[in-house]
Amino acid sequence: MPPVEEVDIAAVRYKPPTLQAPHLTGFSLRAFLWLMESSLLGPLITSVLKSQNNMPQADPEPEVVLVDEDRDLVERVHEALQCLPQYDPSIRWTTEENPPFLYWKIRDFAHAYRSGITTPSAVAEYVIAGVEEWNNKKPPMPMLIYFNADDLKKQAEASTKRFQQGNPISILDGVFVAIKDDIDCFPYPTKGATTFFDQIHTVEKDAVCVARLRKCGVIFIGKANMHELGLGVTGNNPNYGTARNPHSVDRYTGGSSSGPAALVSSGLCSAAIGTDGGGSVRIPSALCGIVGFKTTYGRTDMTGVLCDSGTVEVASPLVSSVEDAILSPLCVPNLLSPENSNILGSVKIGKYTEWFNDVSDHEISSTCDNALKLLCSAFGCQIEEITLPELEEMRTAHVVSIGSESFCDLNPHYKAGRKTEFTLDTRTSLALFGSFTATDYVASQSIRRRIMHYHMEAFKKVDVIATPTTGITAPKIPPSALKSGESNYVVSAYLMRFIIAGNLLGLPAITVPVGHDKQGLPIGLQLIGRPWGEASLLRVASAVEELCLKKRKRPSAFYDILKA
Amino acid sequence: MPPVEEVDIAAVRYKPPTLQAPHLTGFSLRAFLWLMESSLLGPLITSVLKSQNNMPQADPEPEVVLVDEDRDLVERVHEALQCLPQYDPSIRWTTEENPPFLYWKIRDFAHAYRSGITTPSAVAEYVIAGVEEWNNKKPPMPMLIYFNADDLKKQAEASTKRFQQGNPISILDGVFVAIKDDIDCFPYPTKGATTFFDQIHTVEKDAVCVARLRKCGVIFIGKANMHELGLGVTGNNPNYGTARNPHSVDRYTGGSSSGPAALVSSGLCSAAIGTDGGGSVRIPSALCGIVGFKTTYGRTDMTGVLCDSGTVEVASPLVSSVEDAILSPLCVPNLLSPENSNILGSVKIGKYTEWFNDVSDHEISSTCDNALKLLCSAFGCQIEEITLPELEEMRTAHVVSIGSESFCDLNPHYKAGRKTEFTLDTRTSLALFGSFTATDYVASQSIRRRIMHYHMEAFKKVDVIATPTTGITAPKIPPSALKSGESNYVVSAYLMRFIIAGNLLGLPAITVPVGHDKQGLPIGLQLIGRPWGEASLLRVASAVEELCLKKRKRPSAFYDILKA
Repeated sequence: MPPVEEVDIAAVRYKPPTLQAPHLTGFSLRAFLWLMESSLLGPLITSVLKSQNNMPQADPEPEVVLVDEDRDLVERVHEALQCLPQYDPSIRWTTEENPPFLYWKIRDFAHAYRSGITTPSAVAEYVIAGVEEWNNKKPPMPMLIYFNADDLKKQAEASTKRFQQGNPISILDGVFVAIKDDIDCFPYPTKGATTFFDQIHTVEKDAVCVARLRKCGVIFIGKANMHELGLGVTGNNPNYGTARNPHSVDRYTGGSSSGPAALVSSGLCSAAIGTDGGGSVRIPSALCGIVGFKTTYGRTDMTGVLCDSGTVEVASPLVSSVEDAILSPLCVPNLLSPENSNILGSVKIGKYTEWFNDVSDHEISSTCDNALKLLCSAFGCQIEEITLPELEEMRTAHVVSIGSESFCDLNPHYKAGRKTEFTLDTRTSLALFGSFTATDYVASQSIRRRIMHYHMEAFKKVDVIATPTTGITAPKIPPSALKSGESNYVVSAYLMRFIIAGNLLGLPAITVPVGHDKQGLPIGLQLIGRPWGEASLLRVASAVEELCLKKRKRPSAFYDILKA
Repeated sequence: MPPVEEVDIAAVRYKPPTLQAPHLTGFSLRAFLWLMESSLLGPLITSVLKSQNNMPQADPEPEVVLVDEDRDLVERVHEALQCLPQYDPSIRWTTEENPPFLYWKIRDFAHAYRSGITTPSAVAEYVIAGVEEWNNKKPPMPMLIYFNADDLKKQAEASTKRFQQGNPISILDGVFVAIKDDIDCFPYPTKGATTFFDQIHTVEKDAVCVARLRKCGVIFIGKANMHELGLGVTGNNPNYGTARNPHSVDRYTGGSSSGPAALVSSGLCSAAIGTDGGGSVRIPSALCGIVGFKTTYGRTDMTGVLCDSGTVEVASPLVSSVEDAILSPLCVPNLLSPENSNILGSVKIGKYTEWFNDVSDHEISSTCDNALKLLCSAFGCQIEEITLPELEEMRTAHVVSIGSESFCDLNPHYKAGRKTEFTLDTRTSLALFGSFTATDYVASQSIRRRIMHYHMEAFKKVDVIATPTTGITAPKIPPSALKSGESNYVVSAYLMRFIIAGNLLGLPAITVPVGHDKQGLPIGLQLIGRPWGEASLLRVASAVEELCLKKRKRPSAFYDILKA
């Protein structure tokens, strides 16, 4: 490849990905896996698949460093609170609310607890009833892998008592949060939604990001379902059942943070903490019509998260509003004081139109485009056309990086004869990941450096890059996929089309719901920021959210059931 | 593996490496390579070899940064000069010198040019005669791949003129330097001692490190021979002939900087610039009885060097004395002012005795040990016993890192059908390197972080770590290896036993000649410093050199011939 400085960006033509892979579920998936894992044919198949899909041809970005987040958390959340516009309770409490709590923001709960409208214990009863009802349904909606009603009640009682005594810990006191099953949350086991990881990995304390929330008074509702080990983006999980999309129960939530997205979207909790190594927070958030906020790589301490040593993944919040993302102690940007809200007029938004429009249905790109147009007319932001070369190489470098790093973590168990305990889908991925050579990995790190260069060139012209979050809305769950899983690289590629830069380059990125398709399925707009540029990113996201709020629909399936 | 903090270093037991690999030359090497490169048996063989040798089970060290070396070079060399003790010409010119120039230091040449004892043009004639005589011998002694007597004369004339006019550029003006064939030195081609790399890689200007020397008035005598592409440590090269050890012409120089070491050892030039990614400067320096100085990773700009994107290799000088290493503009430490020479009394030298003694012949370790004892009694330094865990894992992580990075660079040519143009030895290495998986590479980077931790723990107790430079003295060249090459991993492992930390961790390290074995072959002591700790490292090396100077023998073969 030519040196990046010699690439004429103006002459670059967008190339839509030409992914070739069989769509497999049930028997066909099992048969394919048998071939992939066979020592004779496996290398041949992976080689054909890889050459068809332009696989292989890195250095972590120098901008990425580990921030010292050891300041007092309660204080940090309080500071974030000061950056928000004045809270106006009349907005929530003038409209008739039925059922309660759905899409309440953190500050709504805080107001309700402080003004005696409700108590954490009362909310806990609602959460318990909701979770149990959904677990007992046919088909079941397994949003949580571990749930303990008694423990939840105890946490809620302690919080209720603090409010009664007039000394809540912080704005987050009594707020209900779910934790994805690849993050330690004591005393629950951490399985990454496998059947056996608790035998390998003993949880003795909270992950650092969970401990921070706990210190602020958060109530944990349990361990949320996910795509096994995060190695897929539909949320399919034959081990615990597949979480279903609250907007349409025969469709996927997206993944891998399937349970977190379903829980927040259905209104059973205010926030969930997921992990995003390949869109795993942003994809399900977009498909479930909520906000998913992937922070800059390195911003969040990963101690106590299953994948704590990779170069692409961070723990990040799924929330129902941008405001709640700001209040999450996983990321407290300090540039968001309300006085600076007029910066929006000077914001330049980058759009690579050909890429932006490369979606399964024109509806998705036009809905996102309309949101940007609203933003421009309301605040005077400007759209700038940009070009990002080598997007296909970026995709390949990402698969090789995350795949190799995952496989390195899992290899000991894989080799120790536990291979068959993984799902067929995971095994298919691992067969591919295990075939990557060291050369592929080293070359991917060079690609990474190139792609970072192109993005930093773009960021000289623009402040934020906008794309649809996904290339399709929530896909249907094939009935055969429920029991044995599913491998559908074409759907995965559509889901992951726009999310790679967040992971491969560590850039912060957020998805905001901006509308629905003909079938009522949510559409998300993704905004990608400069490294460590969370502050202005959240400012733009907040404005988009406000402008599109009227278009937002409640998840009807859940809404109806909760009403009953 | 347990977390590094939990490894009880006091309980670690040294494990000598148990390398298992066939020794191959000629037909057996060719047959083995045929098997290694076959698609069916290759993976099986590499897998057996790798499992026998504990291969695989990683982040570049945070201490390593790229130093801004863009200051005026002449000024920098002048500053370095001020840090040396006063020059005393009487030492060189009171003893009868025959032949001239052999082991003259840079300051000897400078004095001789300035006082009219000789001129660069006169020295050039001597160099030309020496090179031509050696090239025409049977067996030939191919120390240089490219040599142009006319060009050399021209450079010398220009320098002579500067002295005649009374304005030499710097202390390096008129000093003769050879450049290893993997570093660009215009107008010569760069082949890395392959037969065809000049068709792939066009040289349009000097490498940055060469340009710096040229600006100081250095005279370049040509491109020095090397182990093909630096992928071996004996210096064997069937393409251009194998450079021979000036101390014993039927023995290897060591490699990969074979030509540079032979040229400096034989007295044909004052310094040579080599590259050290796996001991390639230190090993041949030790085997040829000269000083080889591997600087901290990142200290030297690698632009214009064939391997400019790896994580283990730096361009570094081979010289006849520590003083000349200080004067090389590749590394000018600024803490070496003569007033501070009394720091030696407080220096603590780390020694891991079991490792130190794990050599092919006790003579090697006892000679090195005697040098350390001399140092302690002369200056009051102290020896501290240290333990470095996981040395075998360090070796593996290094092979995987350098192998994968090399293979990534060479793979396009390898795949483009040029495989058979490499030597059998290179192809054997590439067959192994190409078999490494991405998991191996990722795991090696984790190992790297662990090993760095152990070394930094040791550096809390000591200032410098001392080892023999190699586990054997110069090995014999099997006659069958001259034409078809040689693969002898057991010899390579002995040669590389002590040099890995310099490359895998980027630590500075220097080899100083401290004596000879029964056969008169040189023995080198290696001193390893803290990251960027070149200043104190050179101080200790200088003291060792001074104490062992009397034991140093001239290379008799060359000496006799030059005298005639």
